[in-house]
Amino acid sequence: MAVSVALLGAGRIGKVHAKAIGAAPGARLVAVADAFPEAAEAIAEGYGARVSSIDEIAAADDVDAVIICTPTDTHADLIEQFARAGKAVFCEKPVDLSLERVKACLKTVEELGATLMLGFNRRFDPHFKAVREAIDAGRIGEVEMVQITSRDPGAPPPAYIKVSGGIFRDMTIHDFDMARFLLGEEVTTVYATASVLVDPEIGKLGDYDSASVVLTTASGKQCSISNSRRATYGYDQRIEVHGSKGVVSAENQRAVSIEVATEAGYQRPPLHDFFMTRYTEAYAAEITAFVEAIEKGTAPSPSGEDGMKALALAEAALKSVAERRAVGMDEI
Amino acid sequence: MAVSVALLGAGRIGKVHAKAIGAAPGARLVAVADAFPEAAEAIAEGYGARVSSIDEIAAADDVDAVIICTPTDTHADLIEQFARAGKAVFCEKPVDLSLERVKACLKTVEELGATLMLGFNRRFDPHFKAVREAIDAGRIGEVEMVQITSRDPGAPPPAYIKVSGGIFRDMTIHDFDMARFLLGEEVTTVYATASVLVDPEIGKLGDYDSASVVLTTASGKQCSISNSRRATYGYDQRIEVHGSKGVVSAENQRAVSIEVATEAGYQRPPLHDFFMTRYTEAYAAEITAFVEAIEKGTAPSPSGEDGMKALALAEAALKSVAERRAVGMDEI
Amino acid sequence: MAVSVALLGAGRIGKVHAKAIGAAPGARLVAVADAFPEAAEAIAEGYGARVSSIDEIAAADDVDAVIICTPTDTHADLIEQFARAGKAVFCEKPVDLSLERVKACLKTVEELGATLMLGFNRRFDPHFKAVREAIDAGRIGEVEMVQITSRDPGAPPPAYIKVSGGIFRDMTIHDFDMARFLLGEEVTTVYATASVLVDPEIGKLGDYDSASVVLTTASGKQCSISNSRRATYGYDQRIEVHGSKGVVSAENQRAVSIEVATEAGYQRPPLHDFFMTRYTEAYAAEITAFVEAIEKGTAPSPSGEDGMKALALAEAALKSVAERRAVGMDEI
Amino acid sequence: MAVSVALLGAGRIGKVHAKAIGAAPGARLVAVADAFPEAAEAIAEGYGARVSSIDEIAAADDVDAVIICTPTDTHADLIEQFARAGKAVFCEKPVDLSLERVKACLKTVEELGATLMLGFNRRFDPHFKAVREAIDAGRIGEVEMVQITSRDPGAPPPAYIKVSGGIFRDMTIHDFDMARFLLGEEVTTVYATASVLVDPEIGKLGDYDSASVVLTTASGKQCSISNSRRATYGYDQRIEVHGSKGVVSAENQRAVSIEVATEAGYQRPPLHDFFMTRYTEAYAAEITAFVEAIEKGTAPSPSGEDGMKALALAEAALKSVAERRAVGMDEI
Repeated sequence: MAVSVALLGAGRIGKVHAKAIGAAPGARLVAVADAFPEAAEAIAEGYGARVSSIDEIAAADDVDAVIICTPTDTHADLIEQFARAGKAVFCEKPVDLSLERVKACLKTVEELGATLMLGFNRRFDPHFKAVREAIDAGRIGEVEMVQITSRDPGAPPPAYIKVSGGIFRDMTIHDFDMARFLLGEEVTTVYATASVLVDPEIGKLGDYDSASVVLTTASGKQCSISNSRRATYGYDQRIEVHGSKGVVSAENQRAVSIEVATEAGYQRPPLHDFFMTRYTEAYAAEITAFVEAIEKGTAPSPSGEDGMKALALAEAALKSVAERRAVGMDEI
Repeated sequence: MAVSVALLGAGRIGKVHAKAIGAAPGARLVAVADAFPEAAEAIAEGYGARVSSIDEIAAADDVDAVIICTPTDTHADLIEQFARAGKAVFCEKPVDLSLERVKACLKTVEELGATLMLGFNRRFDPHFKAVREAIDAGRIGEVEMVQITSRDPGAPPPAYIKVSGGIFRDMTIHDFDMARFLLGEEVTTVYATASVLVDPEIGKLGDYDSASVVLTTASGKQCSISNSRRATYGYDQRIEVHGSKGVVSAENQRAVSIEVATEAGYQRPPLHDFFMTRYTEAYAAEITAFVEAIEKGTAPSPSGEDGMKALALAEAALKSVAERRAVGMDEI
Repeated sequence: MAVSVALLGAGRIGKVHAKAIGAAPGARLVAVADAFPEAAEAIAEGYGARVSSIDEIAAADDVDAVIICTPTDTHADLIEQFARAGKAVFCEKPVDLSLERVKACLKTVEELGATLMLGFNRRFDPHFKAVREAIDAGRIGEVEMVQITSRDPGAPPPAYIKVSGGIFRDMTIHDFDMARFLLGEEVTTVYATASVLVDPEIGKLGDYDSASVVLTTASGKQCSISNSRRATYGYDQRIEVHGSKGVVSAENQRAVSIEVATEAGYQRPPLHDFFMTRYTEAYAAEITAFVEAIEKGTAPSPSGEDGMKALALAEAALKSVAERRAVGMDEI
Repeated sequence: MAVSVALLGAGRIGKVHAKAIGAAPGARLVAVADAFPEAAEAIAEGYGARVSSIDEIAAADDVDAVIICTPTDTHADLIEQFARAGKAVFCEKPVDLSLERVKACLKTVEELGATLMLGFNRRFDPHFKAVREAIDAGRIGEVEMVQITSRDPGAPPPAYIKVSGGIFRDMTIHDFDMARFLLGEEVTTVYATASVLVDPEIGKLGDYDSASVVLTTASGKQCSISNSRRATYGYDQRIEVHGSKGVVSAENQRAVSIEVATEAGYQRPPLHDFFMTRYTEAYAAEITAFVEAIEKGTAPSPSGEDGMKALALAEAALKSVAERRAVGMDEI
């Protein structure tokens, strides 16, 4: 029997998830809710689903699971509401911008024994996943140093920046999760430096657009993260893991990989525009994993705790920038 | 209104097309026919279609178009039957192994004013398509020399070889079409040499497994094709077009593009296994193009004539191998 | 004791060899001859050598070996003169444009027991040499198909074309030698097609500027060669050898290998300008090999016979173009 | 007139410089000094130079310049001795491990108006130099973030570690200079973290083998450096500079660039062994630049001050590791 899924939030990322549900053999989209009925309708029509309200979905017998793609400030409440309603919950990152609220929410989820999966889609990218598998297979020996380069093609508008929680909670959070995924050991100290090089408007809002972060673990493993809100050549997403026996890396991806050579030299096209096309396969794979966890009754991964830990690293990074020193995770 | 499509043949390639129809916004799979009802049933279930006989489909009012993926020796008859039934027809290459039969079939299609599209999927590969677009955009000037490297990962079984029409009609035919697609001028002479280097069984059946072909056009453009039924490193599919202002090339594709470096050197994974995964996007795009042509009432491309011309090049190649000389297309 | 070398011909390639002798630990440049004394003087000064006439060099007791870089039509005579004078001879390709003259010259060399090495420098390129070594190490199993892409950055002036012997004797001859080097089996048939796509002046002189060649061996191995007198992106020199267990390839080289990515895409610089910079290491290595052969008293390779066989393949290619058929090497 | 050069120190790097002098058109090696006469003799013989003592060289009328490749603890004294003797001085990095001693030495050099060039060879690598040129040409706009990955193929022996001054003064110092070269703005703060992951013996000596460094400038530019004393796949030397209009990078280099593809995947050889082969061209180019500066009477670059500033960054890095905070360069 197919898992029946409802979609909360019919925006850009909602469409991506709807398509992924449609493609997943074991899932069926049954309901869509959004503050804008037209947006909900547009998706519902394409997949034979109904438009509903959030409360109707919570009460619906034929809904097994929900995918939360609403604005960040609604995530924690919705997670709690649907956990109480006995639905399996997939929630886009972050659970909340406040670490305290996240902890309270996860406590509720735990007490209810509810199923919660966090949307750290990059773990499901076939290339990044293959990096993790190469490590697990012992191909590079012990992990020593991780390098993550993660640059957005362009800065978001001020309206987005204002509610984003800042670069560390909004953008680096993906890299913090990737660092944990790749290091295989919890981070103990965080150093971050950040500046405004791309857009002065971002600085006026108290945020940064360029950041360098160094994470360390108890055993001395190191991870460097390089972030920018600007990459003229496309969505720059690279990882490299250096170990005792070698190094494994995942290069950037492009939609079209031709090369033209003329007297000006050799030219390849820019990278993917942004996450919608870069992580198409990852989005499909994470929904498949969510559905499979529901079918098998296992705990999905990444978990709410993974979400909480990535957010704590963001908190530490903010503190490090302010105090110009390495911040211990025991301080957060 | 969505275009209603029936699938004739529920084998390996039939499944690929069913998935493509399912994904195409404007198409709906309504019926599946196959000599083995279980195969038809397996696909029909997954997409909410019915199992039918070929004759029922021909007579069905709710079928706008058919996709023919049955064995090669049935293609021409089915094209004629469905052209007469007023259905738009998409047919896997080749129309027939006999050039005479192809010509007769295309004549019937033409007389009926029917819609026929040939399954030269590679024209729809995003990378190869981008090569054609780079040429059209004038980036390499006038086309001068084309190089096509096309190697299967492994030799097919003797049973397949027997009915395949031989390497030129079965395998090189895709490269002949690609040569025409890229040269932008009809081929006037064909030289081919072929040998048995991979599997002696293939030689016993009168076929070859390794071939080198040189095509020329009236203006002196040249195209080299290199074929082998063996490529241990995956499905090798490369094109390069050299022109007066530069060169454009499309490299091989792999499912996972990580690189591992150890004391043994730098290692990347093998290529895609075969056409099912290598040309996933191409298969989806060709079905989309077929559906769009039906919706718009335009003539789909590649046409039956493209199929005929590629087959004629295969005939010329066979003659060239036998006579160890360049064969003029006016001899075929 | 260092081998004392005289240089005959102080042109472009003479300078390259002078530098290679200067760098070779076991060699010393002692004399330089050229029809233009200033050219000879310029090289002689830089390496502490004297300017001499050809006859003085032939008679000089302190000259062990000569390097012939004079115009092609003097090669055979000079080889014979210096073989008689007891000097070891290194001669730039070709020995002569006439196969008959080459055979006569080699007969003289053989009767005198003289030492003769031919300047097929590409065998000494570290990348191409590594391709040969990978084959020898069994990494690709049995050689099946060779692909050689060899394109000059631009067409030479008519004056050069006139005395060059034509594209096959002047340019493809290097690829014929490379084909023999890589196939590991003598070529039995040659098919060639050629046209004038780059410069009509070349056509007026009865020559071609674009050629595709297919070679076959008795066991069915195949080699494709693609030549053009034009490559806007630099000196295009690639080889690929496909075997039963895999493929080995040597990519193009560039002087500077940076990559710049902007909104226009990813850009790498053009290739090396031409052979002078592309084959710097190869020229040094071939002179080192020549000096070592003299020191050890062994027969240097490539030999005069290698030069003769490459020329015979050029003859066959010319005949094939004229007769539009595969030409057997037993016909030459 | 050729510049007459004496070599002080006939070890591994001395040989490299001797070869570079031999190859430089405008330079001549006239004398070699070493504590081990046999080592001096071996080099002197190959280039027609004499074996001398340091004091003889300082007094020699026919010596214009010296190249100092002796142990680090002799550098400052020798620089002062030869500056006083009126010789142009090229000195391998560092001038001294003590910042105070360096400052005193440079003061002496300045007072004497002597010529001093520091051996930061990487600035002369054709690829890294091309990165700098791409920046100067405005191809990437304003520099924002620099990433330097620099890993030795293996850890040096304890005896070397003991006198090396530690990883930051010995190894990272090259990257500090490269950072200054690429940032185009002085560094104001340094954060470094370091650990022992490769060889516990290094830890016992109070040193580290793995380090991550983040540098910032007054305008907010950032530079990340990743260092390890281990890279199983060869000498890992990469730089990448991200700017407002794009990114420019220089990839690793290898002696042989073939690729072998088999059922195990695609394999390229490891990188260069170490600096001797990786930076061959850079060593030659820096000696040429030194000789040209002498000929033209201009101040050579990198200067003694460049050496001093790189050492100061190393000091700051050490302090940062100890105090787990960002250290301002005004504290050093």
